Amino acid sequence: MRGAILYGPKDLRFEDRETPAILKPTDAIIRIAATCVCGSDLWPYRGIQAITQPTPMGHEYCGMVEEIGSAVKNVKPGQFVIGSFFASDNTCPHCHVGYQTSCQQREFVTTAQAPLLRVPLADGTLVATPDIPSGDMIPSLLTTSDVLGTGWFAAYAANVKPGSTVVVVGDGAVGLLGVLSAKQMGAERIIAMSRHSSRQKLALEFGATEIVTERGDAGVARIKELTNGIGADSALECVGAQESMMQAIGSTRPGGFVGYVGVPHGVELNGEKLFFAHVHLHGGPAPVRRFLPQLIDLVWNGKINPGKVFDLTLPLDQVAEGYRAMDERRAIKALLRP
Amino acid sequence: MRGAILYGPKDLRFEDRETPAILKPTDAIIRIAATCVCGSDLWPYRGIQAITQPTPMGHEYCGMVEEIGSAVKNVKPGQFVIGSFFASDNTCPHCHVGYQTSCQQREFVTTAQAPLLRVPLADGTLVATPDIPSGDMIPSLLTTSDVLGTGWFAAYAANVKPGSTVVVVGDGAVGLLGVLSAKQMGAERIIAMSRHSSRQKLALEFGATEIVTERGDAGVARIKELTNGIGADSALECVGAQESMMQAIGSTRPGGFVGYVGVPHGVELNGEKLFFAHVHLHGGPAPVRRFLPQLIDLVWNGKINPGKVFDLTLPLDQVAEGYRAMDERRAIKALLRP
Repeated sequence: MRGAILYGPKDLRFEDRETPAILKPTDAIIRIAATCVCGSDLWPYRGIQAITQPTPMGHEYCGMVEEIGSAVKNVKPGQFVIGSFFASDNTCPHCHVGYQTSCQQREFVTTAQAPLLRVPLADGTLVATPDIPSGDMIPSLLTTSDVLGTGWFAAYAANVKPGSTVVVVGDGAVGLLGVLSAKQMGAERIIAMSRHSSRQKLALEFGATEIVTERGDAGVARIKELTNGIGADSALECVGAQESMMQAIGSTRPGGFVGYVGVPHGVELNGEKLFFAHVHLHGGPAPVRRFLPQLIDLVWNGKINPGKVFDLTLPLDQVAEGYRAMDERRAIKALLRP
Repeated sequence: MRGAILYGPKDLRFEDRETPAILKPTDAIIRIAATCVCGSDLWPYRGIQAITQPTPMGHEYCGMVEEIGSAVKNVKPGQFVIGSFFASDNTCPHCHVGYQTSCQQREFVTTAQAPLLRVPLADGTLVATPDIPSGDMIPSLLTTSDVLGTGWFAAYAANVKPGSTVVVVGDGAVGLLGVLSAKQMGAERIIAMSRHSSRQKLALEFGATEIVTERGDAGVARIKELTNGIGADSALECVGAQESMMQAIGSTRPGGFVGYVGVPHGVELNGEKLFFAHVHLHGGPAPVRRFLPQLIDLVWNGKINPGKVFDLTLPLDQVAEGYRAMDERRAIKALLRP
């Protein structure tokens, strides 16, 4: 089997890899219908997050169950399934309260950019669709595996409610689907912070009511101006950088909520500034598994079309071009078909 | 009039100060029945927070209205009143959602360790008691001005609910009243982190169910041990130091809540650690005004006796000894009577 392997900065190859097999009775093997490149894959691709050896890549997936371990009860071969980027047992105390990405048995899925994938803890991790989906639904279903679930969690963590004024920091796929999520949760105003016209367009299509192109302190000042000096009720931080984090916090009114889902890189929060900002702060690796049934249902019933974030579709063997296009911001998000 | 003035580290004097007068039509003048020394007064007293000139001190107060400005409608001379350490108009958008300490017109009250006090924005700031209180109720009423309201906000920000398992970091007066607050909110287990026997005793009296003497990583390990490896539902951070903050965050389960009310001094939060801790974080200057009516009612009806945190009572002219006793941890909190 051939799959994506990262050798070092900007050096992504499609090469022979071990074909996955059942290792534990709780495993399942999935034949991938579609996978994709994540914004977080770009951290090691750009060398910002070091890797020490050739590393298989990919953590977003959906596809057909090919084989199950002897202990698997909830899914069976032939079913179309989706799972989160963290495998979880869905029964431990952390899963029980909806924080499956902190599952006591969690395992990060890291080999999904390939035709076949071993998914640990299959019973807890995988959710089957009601039937075999049509091909045109697959991109949207694939987003529920991470990028939509992450944008959804950002909006959830930011306490978005009917009537809320919401700021979305970050116009990558997660930010854009944060806009879609805020819209679904009933936000009245959704201010997307973006300076790229194709992303602005998609943000508006997903429900953004305003676009702000300024960044940093100027961005915060603009948000204050748009909200009578008060600030937003909710801010979604979908980048993970120092500037974006401070932009989200500064844009939020005292007593408001910041949901942050961009994996922080080099972010340090000054305690005193945070204290006087008076905001609620919640985030972390999105517990996508909590939201999967609801999000699959929204896609299945045609209520949302999050698959629009894929503006580039490639055969899996051209995965390196997918990374390049996203790195150079020529594509928002690249879908890969085996 | 004589009042407390801080000249520099450990140099607190009781000296002539200007007698307060009505400066704006929204002011009131209060004759102080009791005031006290706050844990946060110790930051400048110890020289950790620099002062540039001789500085009047004190921000906790209750007493009789002596005089009101021409625009004041809600309180009148002869009433016994309590106010927060931040004056607030109680009508701006931030006050409207319960964040009076971020009021658009807020003014910090800084001269309360004196017989007379000018309170700005009297209508928004002051709450009158149902009648003139008896002398023995005054210590408990005084706590509602800051220290109880702050402990209460810590528990509120930490989402304490009936049945919760709660950790309280900090055994100063705020932490001890955080214990009392958590108990009032129905917490089932309240673990007080303290290594001082007199404070442990008061914590147990206020509702703590367990005492943990370990600190830092050892403290976190002990909390994990006491909670089957899960962590607490809620942690109250009532100190404001790096170690106490990390202790609170580390003691909390993924998805749990950290309420922090200790004014942070030198605290830096690593974004990545916070992300994977998966906690909710909320805090800031406690919006005491929001809770004042409820807390006055609880004291007035004898449901709580937070005044027990005062283990030292001094005439106001001995205020310097109050600072010394608290600095040397000979006293939990010093009450001062003019």
